[in-house]
Amino acid sequence: MKALVSTERIRFALQLADVAADIVRARYRTPFTSESKADATPVTEVDREVEAACRERVATAWPDEGVIGEEFGADQPGAAWQWIIDPIDGTRAFMAGRPTFGTLIAVAYEGRSVLGVIDQPIVRDRWLGVAGQSTLFNDEPVVTRRCGRLHDAVVGTTTPELFQADELPSWQELQRQTASRIYGGDCTIYGALACGWLDVVVERGLKLYDFAALVPIVEGAGGSMTDWQGNELTTNSHGHVLALGDKALLAAARRALSRHDSVSATRRA
Amino acid sequence: MKALVSTERIRFALQLADVAADIVRARYRTPFTSESKADATPVTEVDREVEAACRERVATAWPDEGVIGEEFGADQPGAAWQWIIDPIDGTRAFMAGRPTFGTLIAVAYEGRSVLGVIDQPIVRDRWLGVAGQSTLFNDEPVVTRRCGRLHDAVVGTTTPELFQADELPSWQELQRQTASRIYGGDCTIYGALACGWLDVVVERGLKLYDFAALVPIVEGAGGSMTDWQGNELTTNSHGHVLALGDKALLAAARRALSRHDSVSATRRA
Repeated sequence: MKALVSTERIRFALQLADVAADIVRARYRTPFTSESKADATPVTEVDREVEAACRERVATAWPDEGVIGEEFGADQPGAAWQWIIDPIDGTRAFMAGRPTFGTLIAVAYEGRSVLGVIDQPIVRDRWLGVAGQSTLFNDEPVVTRRCGRLHDAVVGTTTPELFQADELPSWQELQRQTASRIYGGDCTIYGALACGWLDVVVERGLKLYDFAALVPIVEGAGGSMTDWQGNELTTNSHGHVLALGDKALLAAARRALSRHDSVSATRRA
Repeated sequence: MKALVSTERIRFALQLADVAADIVRARYRTPFTSESKADATPVTEVDREVEAACRERVATAWPDEGVIGEEFGADQPGAAWQWIIDPIDGTRAFMAGRPTFGTLIAVAYEGRSVLGVIDQPIVRDRWLGVAGQSTLFNDEPVVTRRCGRLHDAVVGTTTPELFQADELPSWQELQRQTASRIYGGDCTIYGALACGWLDVVVERGLKLYDFAALVPIVEGAGGSMTDWQGNELTTNSHGHVLALGDKALLAAARRALSRHDSVSATRRA
């Protein structure tokens, strides 16, 4: 897999993150328009500006490849190589002036994420994951921390409102069994997991553009990134996501989350 | 009230915040020891180092005044002037490398907060509130935003786990009636409210060192800071806290929160 991702492609992904970061920094905590999308999540004009700028650059540099973005959908969905962009993951945090949001840039090849960038432009934290390589945080390799028992684990999630009523028992069981919980996640909580600062992230309802960049970052730091049943995440996965710093937690985490077992978290196409 | 707080006292409070910030910046995302306190909240050696450094400086500069800190308790509790210090509000976020925590420095005179500083040393965000003066965010005056209807309000809280089982109906009612919720609060969410980036913060279980600094900051930006019944917060208040950017929301917010009305949120001494 390693040879698939060229240095040129990595360099370009980081340039896209720079383009996004310049726009976001200029607009952070300034007045901007926003609206509620059909799925009741907010979007601002800044999300759209960032995605438009990134799409334009991809179309010029990699004209035969696909682009999937949160705000403007898919171009060339049949291409083997796909650029996947979430211009601002954590728009609510961005709107509230909280530097936990980030820009997500991923590359998928034949349905699997092979490159991911999480960029937090205000704090200037950047994670880079490439399939088969060590994850870099601000240019230094990082590894997840060991945590053999759920009882000792610190768990992160963006909001408990992610969980549907019939999934709440799963989340509550995980709460009951773990040491503590951190809310307000957004993408940077997965970066924190890659750095060994917490142990588990559990979410649901994530879209491809929310999780594609996270997979190579978490895996390249020694962690695992699966659905709630432990299955690999692919471009066809639905968004039940379980990130573990220590794979030894998988059986116990799956057991806790199986309190809700009536939903097929992953449906393959 | 204004004349009570001298320029010298304000300058000293900001120097304390500088002392704290230097220590926190040096230790952020480095290995440090931590333990669980009797109330199951975490404390690190960094919390203790910051508080010890601040207490030493207060004892030297203001030897006749009291000091109340999260980690080392109260000195001279009978003094009219009290320095109130939370070295790291949001220790869980600090431990997870998330820059939403802050150092809180407050001054109370005869039981009322007359000065507050929230300092976020990583992003270098600093709020200063002084009774009778406009709140400053990074040296510029700020005001809360108008929001006349709960239906349009963005609400923040640190974690839903703050709420006791019998208080959850209150929180759920507020969720139901408002536009959206942001989790992961810590003290900086109150600063965001002062800047007009969200509308409501609701918490419970806050200690004096958690809320004393917030009162002059929220009030000096045009907001209100009360208990869940709308009563003034004093050094004797128990920690049911309701911060509003727009006081016009008070009646509706009280009504939503009265779903739980069996607890006396404020017991005056």
